Amino acid sequence: MRILHDVEEIDAAKRRVHVRDLKSGKSRWESYGQLLIATGAAPICPDLPGADAVDICGVNTLASGMEIRSRLDKGNIKRAVVVGGGYIGLEMAEALVMNGLEVSLISRPPQVMGTLDEDMGALVSQALRDVGVTLYLDEELTEFETKAGKVTGIVTDKRNLPADIVILGLGVRPNTALAAAAGIPLGEKGSIRVNERMETGTPGIWAAGDCAESFHLISRRPFYVALGTVANRQGRVAGINLGGGYATFPGVTGTAVTKICHVEVARTGLQEQEIAALGLEHVSAVIKSRTRAGYYPGSGDITVKLLAERGSGRLLGGQIVGMEGSAKRIDTVATALQAGFTVEEMINLDLGYAPPFSPVWDPVVTAARAVAKKL
Amino acid sequence: MRILHDVEEIDAAKRRVHVRDLKSGKSRWESYGQLLIATGAAPICPDLPGADAVDICGVNTLASGMEIRSRLDKGNIKRAVVVGGGYIGLEMAEALVMNGLEVSLISRPPQVMGTLDEDMGALVSQALRDVGVTLYLDEELTEFETKAGKVTGIVTDKRNLPADIVILGLGVRPNTALAAAAGIPLGEKGSIRVNERMETGTPGIWAAGDCAESFHLISRRPFYVALGTVANRQGRVAGINLGGGYATFPGVTGTAVTKICHVEVARTGLQEQEIAALGLEHVSAVIKSRTRAGYYPGSGDITVKLLAERGSGRLLGGQIVGMEGSAKRIDTVATALQAGFTVEEMINLDLGYAPPFSPVWDPVVTAARAVAKKL
Repeated sequence: MRILHDVEEIDAAKRRVHVRDLKSGKSRWESYGQLLIATGAAPICPDLPGADAVDICGVNTLASGMEIRSRLDKGNIKRAVVVGGGYIGLEMAEALVMNGLEVSLISRPPQVMGTLDEDMGALVSQALRDVGVTLYLDEELTEFETKAGKVTGIVTDKRNLPADIVILGLGVRPNTALAAAAGIPLGEKGSIRVNERMETGTPGIWAAGDCAESFHLISRRPFYVALGTVANRQGRVAGINLGGGYATFPGVTGTAVTKICHVEVARTGLQEQEIAALGLEHVSAVIKSRTRAGYYPGSGDITVKLLAERGSGRLLGGQIVGMEGSAKRIDTVATALQAGFTVEEMINLDLGYAPPFSPVWDPVVTAARAVAKKL
Repeated sequence: MRILHDVEEIDAAKRRVHVRDLKSGKSRWESYGQLLIATGAAPICPDLPGADAVDICGVNTLASGMEIRSRLDKGNIKRAVVVGGGYIGLEMAEALVMNGLEVSLISRPPQVMGTLDEDMGALVSQALRDVGVTLYLDEELTEFETKAGKVTGIVTDKRNLPADIVILGLGVRPNTALAAAAGIPLGEKGSIRVNERMETGTPGIWAAGDCAESFHLISRRPFYVALGTVANRQGRVAGINLGGGYATFPGVTGTAVTKICHVEVARTGLQEQEIAALGLEHVSAVIKSRTRAGYYPGSGDITVKLLAERGSGRLLGGQIVGMEGSAKRIDTVATALQAGFTVEEMINLDLGYAPPFSPVWDPVVTAARAVAKKL
């Protein structure tokens, strides 16, 4: 096996790739038996005036993280604007607040965490405000203000905000120009279409990670998600198959977790708008419970929302916002989704109980009961 | 609905119960349409010399806990002996150590936490020793030493140990004398046999909680377990059916969690000796991982053992011992058990990952991979 960093062209018909050696500047053709494309994804940068100024930072590599760190360490950075209310935006807002900066977050959608339903997203917005982040929701970034090549602020459709540093958390796009140029079929959001063994539509060429398409087990549709867990699992399957073994990647349920200081956030499955887009109908319930027995030290609030198909009661998704011990409870929901359980079946899940860990009825089961009552 | 505390006899043929009024001393017959037996369980007390001395305490009610608390508060209690290495014994040993007592624990089996396999139980023994509990394993209690009616020590088949207080954690037996006398069929370990709707073998009589039998979903055999979660779920089902509704309690996978100071312990499904007793064969793996991303503050050790059926790979059980964030991971295993998943199917569970919560591959999935490799 060889790892090639600077492939400029894939010639699938002749099973060879054109590689440029960055040291010597020379290029050559290399032949392959099996080729794995693992070109990942790149952060989305807005094509706006001033976007090339210093102190406008995307966060997608270790190097970009270190760069931000070193700028903060200089000490002359007081005001930060985070653009985007997804995982990266939220986690950077948290990190900047913890570093003592004055932080504003701009989101074009009317809520942060667009992968949550509006009611659950509102809890996350509140958590951000509670730690001191100023939110500007439903606002569109229109321009970067700069002075001598350095950013001094941003402009939205509603206001001007001064800024010493701007962090972009606008999501990623799969890096698939190389694959597309070679005629390899693309799928969801421009990612490389693969079968369950991670083989592309072109014989001998495989793809895995943030450049590759996935499959959503609950919507039963092709799906694109750029997450480390998915990339790792796809890579394992591609590697086994490339090496002559046999493995399949059935797909994902869309699980993700994050935190904003003490507030943990988790989601899996389909959210309301995804369910509606599939033409399905759902019943949902939101319950408030505790992370531990109510009388146990350290017990905190937890809110769980579960969504089930109308009529059948088949679990379609779940969202959790709460204090320490909340987020990983989504694993129970994800496993139940993968099992195709109904909310009725979830009522009798034999989950672990002891006062330091849970109320007698785990909040996930309490939510399942609440949904089942509405069916 | 009426709640009767002092039923002395059940006359199932005439659908009536004989009740003694403890205030007046008078007794009477009361008729019933539907009767629920919820007599719970009582702690096992050894029939040994000196067992009726003061400062020998079982722990099964709020009152017994408060009694121990008030004895400790007197301040003249320095040395405690805990008899029994199950949940109650371990949790009491922890509580006593945290209260500054010198604590010894006696266990007749050669390991604490008999619901874990020997290798995982050894980790729990180590955790107890680490917090300062002295363990005497494979030792049988033979006598209580007393002076003027108060306990002064215990005697085992190997040694004498002085003690100012002795805590008994020898498990419980279902309180079913009343039911047995009425001819209601009993099952596992003397618990009341019930169907999936929690109805006993006698028409119009139901049972739920620590007095009632359960069903083990993995061994597919009747099963007795005295845990709050099971009692709660059984009570819900019995209540719905008693009230003319319809609900079933399919059974349990045998999940339980506990902790000894910072070490969390969890188990579900079948352990090695249960699998062997069923005539089944298994493959298992024990993996060491981290509770969070290795580089994330607060990341701790976690050890996961999974057991699967030889050949089919069907998950049979799981055990977890580790630092904060370990125990509730058993819920994923319990849900996978309830789903009938193979360890191969568990490899692609879409569990939540972010550095504060998990390595990219959740330890449960890492364990599933390790077992799958051995199939």
